[in-house]
Amino acid sequence: MAKSNFSSAEKWLVKKIHRSIGNAPLQLVLGNGDESGASDGDRTGKVILRDRTTLLRMLLDPEVGFGDSYMEGRAEVDGDLVRCLEDVIRSMRAPQAGTWYGKMISRWLAWAQANTPRGSAKNIHTHYDMTSEFYKLWLDSRMVYTCAYFPTPSTGLEEAQLAKMDHVCRKVQLRPGEKVIEAGCGWGALAIHMAKHYGVNVRAFNISKEQIAFARERAKKEGLSRQVEFIEDDYRNISGKCDVFMSVGMLEHVGAENYKRLGRVIHRAMGDSGRGLLHFIGRNQNRLFSPWIRKRIFPGAHAPSLRQVMDIFEPSDIAVLDVENLRFHYARTLEHWLARFERSTEKVQEMFGADFVRAWRLYLAGSIAAFTTGSLQLFQVTFAGSECARIPWTRAYLYQDQQEAAAEKEPKWIRAMS
Amino acid sequence: MAKSNFSSAEKWLVKKIHRSIGNAPLQLVLGNGDESGASDGDRTGKVILRDRTTLLRMLLDPEVGFGDSYMEGRAEVDGDLVRCLEDVIRSMRAPQAGTWYGKMISRWLAWAQANTPRGSAKNIHTHYDMTSEFYKLWLDSRMVYTCAYFPTPSTGLEEAQLAKMDHVCRKVQLRPGEKVIEAGCGWGALAIHMAKHYGVNVRAFNISKEQIAFARERAKKEGLSRQVEFIEDDYRNISGKCDVFMSVGMLEHVGAENYKRLGRVIHRAMGDSGRGLLHFIGRNQNRLFSPWIRKRIFPGAHAPSLRQVMDIFEPSDIAVLDVENLRFHYARTLEHWLARFERSTEKVQEMFGADFVRAWRLYLAGSIAAFTTGSLQLFQVTFAGSECARIPWTRAYLYQDQQEAAAEKEPKWIRAMS
Repeated sequence: MAKSNFSSAEKWLVKKIHRSIGNAPLQLVLGNGDESGASDGDRTGKVILRDRTTLLRMLLDPEVGFGDSYMEGRAEVDGDLVRCLEDVIRSMRAPQAGTWYGKMISRWLAWAQANTPRGSAKNIHTHYDMTSEFYKLWLDSRMVYTCAYFPTPSTGLEEAQLAKMDHVCRKVQLRPGEKVIEAGCGWGALAIHMAKHYGVNVRAFNISKEQIAFARERAKKEGLSRQVEFIEDDYRNISGKCDVFMSVGMLEHVGAENYKRLGRVIHRAMGDSGRGLLHFIGRNQNRLFSPWIRKRIFPGAHAPSLRQVMDIFEPSDIAVLDVENLRFHYARTLEHWLARFERSTEKVQEMFGADFVRAWRLYLAGSIAAFTTGSLQLFQVTFAGSECARIPWTRAYLYQDQQEAAAEKEPKWIRAMS
Repeated sequence: MAKSNFSSAEKWLVKKIHRSIGNAPLQLVLGNGDESGASDGDRTGKVILRDRTTLLRMLLDPEVGFGDSYMEGRAEVDGDLVRCLEDVIRSMRAPQAGTWYGKMISRWLAWAQANTPRGSAKNIHTHYDMTSEFYKLWLDSRMVYTCAYFPTPSTGLEEAQLAKMDHVCRKVQLRPGEKVIEAGCGWGALAIHMAKHYGVNVRAFNISKEQIAFARERAKKEGLSRQVEFIEDDYRNISGKCDVFMSVGMLEHVGAENYKRLGRVIHRAMGDSGRGLLHFIGRNQNRLFSPWIRKRIFPGAHAPSLRQVMDIFEPSDIAVLDVENLRFHYARTLEHWLARFERSTEKVQEMFGADFVRAWRLYLAGSIAAFTTGSLQLFQVTFAGSECARIPWTRAYLYQDQQEAAAEKEPKWIRAMS
């Protein structure tokens, strides 16, 4: 279709697509980027639809249609990709946005990718069993694939991932000799950090074969194989007791229908006296995750509302001690990842082809936009069993200098109260 | 019945009562305190039931039966009242604890004391329109009747109430000239504090006539009548716009059935760009408030679970930024109140009689026990509209020295991000 003339019907369809994305303030253009077929609106960018297939796909489902077309190079963005996606997300908050077909696809994906034990294994394999060489290209040196914690916005990624690991360890107040169960341990960075710097014994679970193999190798190199056990198994099969239950970035893959079960697993492990932390991508409201992300990047993913997460805590009388929302920290983390990814696109293209590069660019840029606009949130929830005696008096100790912390200026405990 | 001999049937009934309070580790004794009719169990204290009426009341409903009997001097506690109540609360966590009659009374109270506009007015009048002279006897000098914030457990009550007011003001980052709406303002301490120390303009709502009159007088004395407007009206009738919506200790009186409505009130007032804070007594699970407390002290009160509270935020896409659980701070606050109350019992008895003194002793002691055992929680939830641009980068600024804060070392804002 490129370079051909566009019928007024096609121009009308472009306007229809524009309406289905809430009349976002960008230009939709047919063909090779000239103004023909452009829709109205204050523009911060230009989206170019290269052919009729793209036009039809986006008519049926603007989100998946655009995602797949962008991936295949049939749709392009002229302008800042992140800013354009932010505009679209803001505009699509309108309740009338989207199409019935898109909603149907979204629900179908939720069904087809359900997180049964077998479904989870397949979903996790898809994303995390890609070669670690790929992730090494753009993650930090410790391979932490979750939101970092930036003491200041200008902190570097390496330092921010270290700070995040310390932040969660300090939140649950790890003490030497304690037993920690970690659910969903990635390539093992946090498990190793906890063992090495906090002297705890860790049993870390993950169903990604590739990640577990990587993590075991790492523990061996660090001489921590006796202190950290990496177990290739589903969180549903976690057995044994712990003082602290830690899970950073797994809940997104659990599925809301399994939260009560996860709650039972946590309670069985930590009992009434334990404590723990969940770190996860969340939402203000219960909505399904982006269907394109689920289709192409994270099958089975769900970002829960805080209401949904209460299914984990309520039945076992677990107290929520602290919720921190770090969504801007995830946007910053993703900015670092995207910048590193862009510096490695040649290698990535050699490994997986040009479509893959474009898909992952869209995923990383779209995630930045989702966190900056508040479409996604990042929650850290600290919790404690009903008989837990290790609850800090205030949160001030979290914000003391690391130097002071090193001098073992311990927080005051509730025991000091009476 | 005192001093009479007890039948074996009565002794059997005592054991039955003991079972209905989950076999709490204390002695239940009939008569004047000798061992006759005592139940088994490791004892931390002794509960003496003086007559048959008490026995029957506690058989029907151990909680309300004991509360009313204690109030009337028909039941006594030999030993530390708070510790005994803690034991009972822990024991009554067992699902089989309580009686059908007690559960029926609890539900009946919920219905009879429903927080309709007229019901709320009546409920609030009962508790808060008692003469301020009474509350002056045992609250701090500023008359703050909500959980204080103790930087350390040994901080005094005066200082801790000041620290609490600063804590919530700093959480929402008040700036001079901003508009604040406060829902449920008590005797006006926080409204006046915000105006005086943060330079904001406050419109503060309360349906207690006595408290509003007191607060207005106070603003006048402080020369703040132009900056702080005290309005005698229901939160449902709040109109006008604000930058910050603040409510400390009102949610307990709203009733879960009205949370969606409160959410609409908040959203209407602060729009998508505002921010705010709710401070309230909460729970790990959705359970009704102590029926005796509802019957005698706080009609219509409900301490919500976090799940229930999401009704306020979710429909308007309001983001939860921070949840802090301060239950031990409420226990400490209540310890101060109880100690001061005990020093004023002669005056209280002159004002309201001996039954009133005992009822309020039980309420204060029982509340301490509820917070130390985790039967109740105290949540501060900071929130922001979907377009709010004033979200701090981290929470570190909350824990800087007051001196540093005075030197206007402002927190980093998300605007600094890009």
